[in-house]
Amino acid sequence: MPRRSFWAWGMETDEPTSAHLQETANQLSSRYGIDVAAPEPLKPAGLALRAPRISLSDDLADDLRDICSVDDWDRAYHTYGRSYPDRIRAFRGEFPSPPDVVARPRKEEDIERLLEWCTIRGYHAIPFGGGSSVVSGFEPEADAEGVVTIDMERLDQILEVDEVSRAARIQAGVYGPALDSQLRPYGLTMRHFPQSFEYSTLGGWLATRSGGHYATNHTRIDDFAESIRMISPSGVWESLRLPGSGAGPSPDRMVLGSEGTLGIITEAWMRVQARPEYRASAGVYFERYEDAWQAARNIAQAKLWPANLRLLDPVEGELAAGMDGRQSLLVIGFESSDLPQGANLRSAVAIARESGGRVSDDELMISDEGGRGANTGAGRQGPVGAWRESFIRAPYAMNATIPLGLVHDTFETAITWDRWPGLDESVRAAVQEALERVCGGGTVSCRFTHVYPDGPAPYYTFIGMGRRGAEIEAWSEIKRVASDAVAAAGGTITHHHAVGKLHRPWYDRQRPDLFAESLRAAKRVLDPAGILNPGVLIDPL
Amino acid sequence: MPRRSFWAWGMETDEPTSAHLQETANQLSSRYGIDVAAPEPLKPAGLALRAPRISLSDDLADDLRDICSVDDWDRAYHTYGRSYPDRIRAFRGEFPSPPDVVARPRKEEDIERLLEWCTIRGYHAIPFGGGSSVVSGFEPEADAEGVVTIDMERLDQILEVDEVSRAARIQAGVYGPALDSQLRPYGLTMRHFPQSFEYSTLGGWLATRSGGHYATNHTRIDDFAESIRMISPSGVWESLRLPGSGAGPSPDRMVLGSEGTLGIITEAWMRVQARPEYRASAGVYFERYEDAWQAARNIAQAKLWPANLRLLDPVEGELAAGMDGRQSLLVIGFESSDLPQGANLRSAVAIARESGGRVSDDELMISDEGGRGANTGAGRQGPVGAWRESFIRAPYAMNATIPLGLVHDTFETAITWDRWPGLDESVRAAVQEALERVCGGGTVSCRFTHVYPDGPAPYYTFIGMGRRGAEIEAWSEIKRVASDAVAAAGGTITHHHAVGKLHRPWYDRQRPDLFAESLRAAKRVLDPAGILNPGVLIDPL
Repeated sequence: MPRRSFWAWGMETDEPTSAHLQETANQLSSRYGIDVAAPEPLKPAGLALRAPRISLSDDLADDLRDICSVDDWDRAYHTYGRSYPDRIRAFRGEFPSPPDVVARPRKEEDIERLLEWCTIRGYHAIPFGGGSSVVSGFEPEADAEGVVTIDMERLDQILEVDEVSRAARIQAGVYGPALDSQLRPYGLTMRHFPQSFEYSTLGGWLATRSGGHYATNHTRIDDFAESIRMISPSGVWESLRLPGSGAGPSPDRMVLGSEGTLGIITEAWMRVQARPEYRASAGVYFERYEDAWQAARNIAQAKLWPANLRLLDPVEGELAAGMDGRQSLLVIGFESSDLPQGANLRSAVAIARESGGRVSDDELMISDEGGRGANTGAGRQGPVGAWRESFIRAPYAMNATIPLGLVHDTFETAITWDRWPGLDESVRAAVQEALERVCGGGTVSCRFTHVYPDGPAPYYTFIGMGRRGAEIEAWSEIKRVASDAVAAAGGTITHHHAVGKLHRPWYDRQRPDLFAESLRAAKRVLDPAGILNPGVLIDPL
Repeated sequence: MPRRSFWAWGMETDEPTSAHLQETANQLSSRYGIDVAAPEPLKPAGLALRAPRISLSDDLADDLRDICSVDDWDRAYHTYGRSYPDRIRAFRGEFPSPPDVVARPRKEEDIERLLEWCTIRGYHAIPFGGGSSVVSGFEPEADAEGVVTIDMERLDQILEVDEVSRAARIQAGVYGPALDSQLRPYGLTMRHFPQSFEYSTLGGWLATRSGGHYATNHTRIDDFAESIRMISPSGVWESLRLPGSGAGPSPDRMVLGSEGTLGIITEAWMRVQARPEYRASAGVYFERYEDAWQAARNIAQAKLWPANLRLLDPVEGELAAGMDGRQSLLVIGFESSDLPQGANLRSAVAIARESGGRVSDDELMISDEGGRGANTGAGRQGPVGAWRESFIRAPYAMNATIPLGLVHDTFETAITWDRWPGLDESVRAAVQEALERVCGGGTVSCRFTHVYPDGPAPYYTFIGMGRRGAEIEAWSEIKRVASDAVAAAGGTITHHHAVGKLHRPWYDRQRPDLFAESLRAAKRVLDPAGILNPGVLIDPL
């Protein structure tokens, strides 16, 4: 039976072979002019974990014991997310603070009883979705006295579908592909495709305010939630299912982004939609980067609401879409379940051309006749298609470079248009300086993942050659410099990767202090013993 | 200098004359077959209020005393909002619990000092925007020992305009028309037009999660807020200005809908937009009501995002748009600053026709040539224009019927499509029964104010003839029956009128208990003495 890799993105079958590692080592050796040696990956059998500090025989009923595992692989696999330092540490087999128990509840009552057990015993209880966090969103605290990680994977069903309102009641532990395939027989889709789609869950998306498929208008998972049900140590929290309400502050908005600190999301009524039948897309080229982002701004402010409006700077265009390294690319895409989108694309392209963009009319890919068969072209042509493929493969691509010392990560933010050029300039300069200092050089590139009428969400990638054994120190320095530069320029420390433990220092300076105190006060109501995911988002009590 | 009426909607000049009252009394007499007598309205000089229980000479610095009023008219005017029972009580001159002091801060520091004074003395501090609440949103508690109402009207300026990002930093006390006229020189608008627009403020919209102009997509004020600044007794709360962020739960979403219980909103960065240059609209007629709302559903689910998608049932169509009382009307309108909207209107009309709607091609009003002069037609023709005029005049129209015993009010909710027909049927039946029982008959009508892909926001109007002196008892019974019916059918107690004190019994059953406890815990952080707007939204501490 296929199993997830304990260190790589994806399954064990996605881990690089020795031959693949050697080939990548040769490429890096020649690119960076150094001698990169390919190590042999650790096998799961070689994991040597600290013994669990929790005994399952103590005061646990048989049926709860049946859903708890103390297996080494299981505990190792649930220790880290998939950030750069997570993957390095896991590849090295460094698991000093694994959870003691991995529990896989079958029903809400199991969760209630697990939380009660942890509350009584003082064990930390950490909710676990798909394990794809890049912000140390579920890593156990080093000083915890006992940690129970609660993996939600068995709560993976769509419980109800309301085809009239286009909504579905969905269990939180369902992974992206399973969610989509359960909706498919109804002709429906949630159309929420974060880059982690394959290895993330509905509950994880809600808890971290995931950003999804759409580049404009409703993209964040927040906008798709009709109501959320959560189990906290103090009891059940469930909001009324409504298309909209103005009755007090939104209860859901306190749960969204709570990152497992207030309770464990068990299910939600989510807005879904008919599957798209019409598509139209184009890649528009710009000689000047500034013209490209001005075009993105003008399209967003015209409120055309394209599904895709992704800008690739010249470096990103070269690395991810095979372009010439001088031009920028603006990928524009529309889709609809009901209506042809050619006219919308032509309107957006006209705006892009006014801003200096180039695309010929016969490069506009338009499937206005509708139907599933008509979809193959639009959005998958030339550099547009190359970028799409690169986007999906990106987390996998690092599987072969992680073991070899390449320092390669991404960070993201959002900023209003007036401050965007300043942020872009200072962030690039700071990260480039850090790369020179730490790695002796490297590249910084940027794309827009989402575009709002009032500003973009830029997503940066940095790559430099590190030294095996010192990669985490190198990465830490670059990450610190990047985060400081983002914060200094007025950007948020995260647009959609979440806070976790990684972004805490910058988040703590960003959010209003009185809001943090209010959240802590709410946490004392919901989790009086302070057992839920300590260290993430807000301080322990 | 013109002054607001202490009981009617609008200014003193909007109060009905004796002749107008007599004419309306004659109309009601003939419509209801009873003898309706026209009373003489109370004059402001006749207001006899309890003496203020707060002495301004006590421990108040001169400059604070200068912004505080203990004038009878001022205190009467700040006692009630503009709900039906508010207007009846004010018309009668019944002001048993007026605020003791009305303060008009000139700057944030004044607010900080006022809150400090109230905290020390144990006075209730009540923020006041435009005074248009219909839910007892700022009425003093009868058992308060001292009440200071803080009228924000002097904080009425736009402080910064960011034309690039299309956003503005705006003081909370600015009224709708002044806000719009300050943006006009920039070619910008917030385009947020609640029915109370003339007599409501930005701060009030934010505190109550106002629903605005747009019938679909971004309508609620929540979606237009980039960041909010609030003064609480514990200090300043200000969120970072961003187009989007996924860093923890949104701080703004805890302020939005807090109804003055957590702090006083002083300013906000708000998203604005270019003024519309293109418009297209049509009124589509339906023989069957069900066909009309199915058309609204289909248009919303096609995600065409019309600015207007307002459905009038046959009764509403007759009363507000001069129709025949059998047909329903779906008003569809598009607008854009940048792009012609004729194609969108034709797409929406095609969907409406598929659902059984009738409109001829030459009834589509399309201003695709752009420019300000081209706007006069679209949206203002025939029954569509009649409805628009009726919508704007509705609060004024009650000025002449309030004194005469007509029981006339509205209530609103939101519900998913699957439960909408059941809600509509049971709510109409319950309210009609109550009208028969209490008023010996009357009418119930419904329109959609907002339409989401997953459900409508229906807005009901009821009218029956009451008996002068017993109007409030009659109204209370009908309101109770209506609210019970809405709650029983699964609707929210308010889509955009807010909770206040009026909706508390139903709100308390609707929100998760643990959320209310969390809010109370946050209030203890922000307002430890519990002085801010007690009784509204959540219980005193």
